[in-house]
Amino acid sequence: MADIATRVYNHKWKIDPIVRSLLDTDFYKLLMCQSVFRNHPDTKVRFSLINRSTDIRLAELIDEGELRQQLDHIRTLRLTRGESTWLRGNTFYGKRQMFRPEFMEWFEELRLPPYTLEKRNGQYELTFEGRWPEVMMWEIPALSVLMELRSRAVLERLGKFELQVLYARAMTKLWEKIERLRGLEDVKVADFGTRRRHSFLWQDWCVQAMIEGLGTRFTGTSNCLIAMRHDIEAIGTNAHELPMVQAALAETDAELRRAPYKVLADWHEEHDGNLRIILPDTFGSRGFLENAPDWLAGWTGIRIDSGDPAEGAEAAIAWWTARGEDPTRKLIIFSDGLDVDKIVELHHRFAGRAKISFGWGTLLTNDFRGLVPGDGLAPFSLVCKAVSANGRPTVKLSDNPNKAMGPAGEIERYKRVFSVGAQAPMDVVV
Amino acid sequence: MADIATRVYNHKWKIDPIVRSLLDTDFYKLLMCQSVFRNHPDTKVRFSLINRSTDIRLAELIDEGELRQQLDHIRTLRLTRGESTWLRGNTFYGKRQMFRPEFMEWFEELRLPPYTLEKRNGQYELTFEGRWPEVMMWEIPALSVLMELRSRAVLERLGKFELQVLYARAMTKLWEKIERLRGLEDVKVADFGTRRRHSFLWQDWCVQAMIEGLGTRFTGTSNCLIAMRHDIEAIGTNAHELPMVQAALAETDAELRRAPYKVLADWHEEHDGNLRIILPDTFGSRGFLENAPDWLAGWTGIRIDSGDPAEGAEAAIAWWTARGEDPTRKLIIFSDGLDVDKIVELHHRFAGRAKISFGWGTLLTNDFRGLVPGDGLAPFSLVCKAVSANGRPTVKLSDNPNKAMGPAGEIERYKRVFSVGAQAPMDVVV
Repeated sequence: MADIATRVYNHKWKIDPIVRSLLDTDFYKLLMCQSVFRNHPDTKVRFSLINRSTDIRLAELIDEGELRQQLDHIRTLRLTRGESTWLRGNTFYGKRQMFRPEFMEWFEELRLPPYTLEKRNGQYELTFEGRWPEVMMWEIPALSVLMELRSRAVLERLGKFELQVLYARAMTKLWEKIERLRGLEDVKVADFGTRRRHSFLWQDWCVQAMIEGLGTRFTGTSNCLIAMRHDIEAIGTNAHELPMVQAALAETDAELRRAPYKVLADWHEEHDGNLRIILPDTFGSRGFLENAPDWLAGWTGIRIDSGDPAEGAEAAIAWWTARGEDPTRKLIIFSDGLDVDKIVELHHRFAGRAKISFGWGTLLTNDFRGLVPGDGLAPFSLVCKAVSANGRPTVKLSDNPNKAMGPAGEIERYKRVFSVGAQAPMDVVV
Repeated sequence: MADIATRVYNHKWKIDPIVRSLLDTDFYKLLMCQSVFRNHPDTKVRFSLINRSTDIRLAELIDEGELRQQLDHIRTLRLTRGESTWLRGNTFYGKRQMFRPEFMEWFEELRLPPYTLEKRNGQYELTFEGRWPEVMMWEIPALSVLMELRSRAVLERLGKFELQVLYARAMTKLWEKIERLRGLEDVKVADFGTRRRHSFLWQDWCVQAMIEGLGTRFTGTSNCLIAMRHDIEAIGTNAHELPMVQAALAETDAELRRAPYKVLADWHEEHDGNLRIILPDTFGSRGFLENAPDWLAGWTGIRIDSGDPAEGAEAAIAWWTARGEDPTRKLIIFSDGLDVDKIVELHHRFAGRAKISFGWGTLLTNDFRGLVPGDGLAPFSLVCKAVSANGRPTVKLSDNPNKAMGPAGEIERYKRVFSVGAQAPMDVVV
């Protein structure tokens, strides 16, 4: 029975929109946005797309007109009534009414602000400027759109069965990873792969495969829309953008030194339990932990997002122990460039010494490595970051100098202020 | 947009019928049936299902009720008007009106005759008795039904994503084979996999993948329904059942000795060109070729369906040469238990020495080896053969004693009559 209506409906779209909902974003963006909306509603920020994989010449792969259509489409989106109901009524991290009425009223009216798009050196310069709570909501959709348009550009050259076999191979690859994870008792893995996914539908498939394959060992997804649709947990706490912007706003070195803790003090006031997760690496984890106030040691856990993850976890365990905390009651979330080998290794090393959890990102939702000639679908390192706040440049150091961002002079100043010594550079794959 | 009507329609079927058309059969059955309909319309035959893989206990795997429902459903099928039009109007092997009006009128009225089903020793005894032209049409649907019910029995235990990954793996596996075949210039491959396919939909997928992947190197399918739907060539000539039944009807040893040539004399009268393909192995290829009348050497080609295929092809080339024929103008069709390695090997060995073509069967349409625990989807050796004609047992020797069929005494008699000496036993995988 041919479904004529569906066929006609599918063909009458002028474009095939990549982002179809304001909830197709990471949960921590919403938590952070609520915090920013309360504490810094009028701070002006600038976010920029940065392609760290300069050999992927996005402006040559992706048609500018198509990119503009996708971005323009995102600007037409508004929170639907059902989405709003879900945010207002659902339980997140065991808590009802996570989102306050004032924030929800604002969010219901939100449309994303304008963007600026230019081509330079084979890359797109895509920037967003305006009030922080609005501009920050561009990060994830902008990344998803670029990633998926790049996928489409490569997929366009394939025949129908080549396409089917491509996805067959990708499915097989993921399932083999899931089967390996199944072998780990009590492993906890969440999907953190929205921003650098191959495509929305593929991320959605990956999540469903994780639900069936891992059962309760799959703890949820960072993607709000997918969490809503499959009635699973939305996962995420906070990210570098909070200390980066806060630090950029500091007037003096002393204020700069206090900035990362000020961010967490605000967070502490707002959240408890599993939302109290330290992200220590924005300006170097070592100094951050050494100089941290005692109340931070009482937080639930830590997220290791750069540097050698085992070293980072050992440092956290040592720090808790030194501060009189029991590490076995603490949560360590690994979230940097994970794949199954690394997950298995870290699980074996740390299970029992702390509670362990994995935020599996790009190599969950975009492991198309080796699947087309020339490896044209391999994931790459695209980010969208706050680059200035109220006209002042932001800086990120992280525990891997290859991930550092900001003007050279400012990087040096931050290194001095935060007493960052020698760091081991590591390749940034994704 | 939910397609409610399609959903309701799909759910109102009492069963999911495996065979949905009388054309879901091998093309050579129709060619042979027309011949039988003309020459032996009243010969009574008995066909039986024989599972050569006795370790696969079909009666324990497959529910008898479900099997009966499927077989009963086949008995409700009649040639549709469009199917009849296709048979009457289409060009087969370059010829219009391959099927004569008398045959088509008979076929349009055909319903398959009753079956007898019993369980014995964990196997099904499924037999069909009646007039040869009717009974012979049971062979392929009976095999497809048993094969697919076995697949379903195993698939029933799998979850939704396990299923998807299973097919993903099978697709990847087939595509890798196709990619290897692509490396062979001028290879000619046809699908001969109806009878032992994993399922109808899977065979249909395989054929479409071959169309896209091999282009003109894919020469067609033995399955009439699939050939019709995708507008590709229907492939096939004749099979062992003709000489087996003809031989069983022989009154004397002398008549028996002449029987296989009598079959081909009838065929010679009816067909020319690429339909004149010798199938020499029914009672041993060596003796068959040695004693063959000269006109047979003028036929277009030979099909090698048992024994060592390279030896069989060498023997054919030597035979043609001895009879003053040019082997490079002859066609050798390999059709026994092929997979890509064997195809590549035979292609390299014989390309240029004769025209070469491959009828790729079970390991095209049912290579699910190694894809589920316990290998429960691996193909197995199920056949459905004429076991008697007008009350006399049939015999098949073939070039592999493990494929021999018939009462022991009769096998000995046939071996004597056809001067079959020592034969090398070979494993029968599929």
